[in-house]
Amino acid sequence: MPITVQAHAALERGGPLRPWSYEQRDARPHDVRIDVLFCGVCHTDLHSIGPWGQNFPLVPGHETVGRVVEIGSAVSTFALGDLVGVGPVVDSCRDCPPCRAGQESMCQQIATAAYDAQDRHGGGVTRGGFAETVVCDERFVFRIPDGLDPAAVAPLLCAGSTVYTPLKQWDAGPGTTVGIVGIGGLGHLGVKFARALGAHVVAFTTSASKAQAALALGAHEVVLSGDPAQMAAQGNRFDLLLDTVPVTHPLTPYMQTLTTGATLVSVGLPPAFDVMPFAMVLGRRSLAGAGAGGAAETREMLEFAARHAITADIETVGRAELNTALKRLEANDVKYRFVVDMKA
Amino acid sequence: MPITVQAHAALERGGPLRPWSYEQRDARPHDVRIDVLFCGVCHTDLHSIGPWGQNFPLVPGHETVGRVVEIGSAVSTFALGDLVGVGPVVDSCRDCPPCRAGQESMCQQIATAAYDAQDRHGGGVTRGGFAETVVCDERFVFRIPDGLDPAAVAPLLCAGSTVYTPLKQWDAGPGTTVGIVGIGGLGHLGVKFARALGAHVVAFTTSASKAQAALALGAHEVVLSGDPAQMAAQGNRFDLLLDTVPVTHPLTPYMQTLTTGATLVSVGLPPAFDVMPFAMVLGRRSLAGAGAGGAAETREMLEFAARHAITADIETVGRAELNTALKRLEANDVKYRFVVDMKA
Repeated sequence: MPITVQAHAALERGGPLRPWSYEQRDARPHDVRIDVLFCGVCHTDLHSIGPWGQNFPLVPGHETVGRVVEIGSAVSTFALGDLVGVGPVVDSCRDCPPCRAGQESMCQQIATAAYDAQDRHGGGVTRGGFAETVVCDERFVFRIPDGLDPAAVAPLLCAGSTVYTPLKQWDAGPGTTVGIVGIGGLGHLGVKFARALGAHVVAFTTSASKAQAALALGAHEVVLSGDPAQMAAQGNRFDLLLDTVPVTHPLTPYMQTLTTGATLVSVGLPPAFDVMPFAMVLGRRSLAGAGAGGAAETREMLEFAARHAITADIETVGRAELNTALKRLEANDVKYRFVVDMKA
Repeated sequence: MPITVQAHAALERGGPLRPWSYEQRDARPHDVRIDVLFCGVCHTDLHSIGPWGQNFPLVPGHETVGRVVEIGSAVSTFALGDLVGVGPVVDSCRDCPPCRAGQESMCQQIATAAYDAQDRHGGGVTRGGFAETVVCDERFVFRIPDGLDPAAVAPLLCAGSTVYTPLKQWDAGPGTTVGIVGIGGLGHLGVKFARALGAHVVAFTTSASKAQAALALGAHEVVLSGDPAQMAAQGNRFDLLLDTVPVTHPLTPYMQTLTTGATLVSVGLPPAFDVMPFAMVLGRRSLAGAGAGGAAETREMLEFAARHAITADIETVGRAELNTALKRLEANDVKYRFVVDMKA
């Protein structure tokens, strides 16, 4: 039987989040119901309650951490009381090549998003983690490793996966020089993961005030991207650039820092790419797009994070401050990620 | 002692090519002087006598085939009478990683172009193949394999190298599905090389009239890119796209035809890339830029072409028709490449 769940929803496009309740589905055989302890605030939440949203009222939140309080009849991987997380993907076709490879986020039938997406089975719309409970197929539920702060681990489920997966895919590691462009919610985790993977890590930031912080996060060097002389000195140097900037910005100066055949991976989902083709031709360089990883990639990321004691640097707020946190995130006023304590 | 050479030059930007003579340098120890038999007409020639040109009078031509008529004192790889070719690169720093890897076209100190570039050693400006003779360091001179038509091999030196090198770099071969976008000077060679490499080859063209020709060139299938239904049917299918189109055009419909993690390589040097980042994120897809290969890559291409009897489909014209050929090339009125018979 469905249960009534208290949540926080945008009742209409652009509206603030307000208390709202909805009927959450009964647990299917492979479902896990999770009592939400923490939910991270992602830039995607802002887009979704704004221009991207399709179905209002809309409950955002896709960096959800909580405890298993109910399991379906066929669940084999979780037990009541387990500390678990759910990220941005909660279902997929499971049959296409990326799904079979554990890269469900790239499902060729389009993965089901944690909120504001059509449920593939029961109909209706998916709803996110700013709620008392969430319900999710066990395939897309991840065990939170022991020893990591449950609040600070929440942003790993989207932001952490979004930086770790391309760092691994494009071979960041010992002997490579990796640049992280933009030191915000994604970038600060990019620095931590790239450092832990063994790369020589260079942080690119527009802000001199972030230079010390980037070094403290683990960067070996900092380049002020607004200084043409500093940028020009980086020519042909980088094996990989991870660009986390969410707005359109000139990529040509960054392309010129890549060594022959190297790749700039954009994970910030800017509206467009501004790049001169000739700068790419000259070094046979690539520009790639990437987002959060699939289930197998996310599990690997969490295990890696546990081994290297990586979590996000967060500011924890109570549910009453959710709208304030969204506004401050929009103004880029957070170091580096908000997490909502859903019990506060 | 320098010699006086009759050539065809744009005397001023945008001007037609006119007979013009200049003092060609004496052969340095490693130089080869070549009596030019044939020179292909490349789209770059149009750009160079137009907006890109720096030094006028400007002698274009960088698909040059001829016979060795003079060798410097230290030349070890060529003898008088050898049939040889020179492509778009005639010098480079020779010390950076790509130069050491035989990828001199990507020299990090910027390779010296066959024309309108500063000579690295003697000063002065380089001049191209629309001339009685050219002189070039043996490192950048290529033996023309026996059995290939010397006129039809000329376009391989730039166009052939520009398509073969990325096809090899991105692993076109048996078991892969490769799309060639645009069936012109570059694209028709792309189809031939991709087929010979063992790939399943699909030609994308806007023109129904080119469909039969593309099949005759070796394509297994043809997709009319102006037909949204045909394009939609190609989703997640291609391991590699080689885009030869020289103008800015929407890349998003092509991105969606790439399988997970695959790459669209643009070799047409359009002014800009028009692509939606989200289409790249969804499949972790890449966009790469590439141009002609270096010396080692060009040698490999010529050997491969000889084994598979690949040359360009050309229309041969005399020197008197050079300006007509440039105008027709600008109007896209050639199947598929002009070559000037410099003795006619």
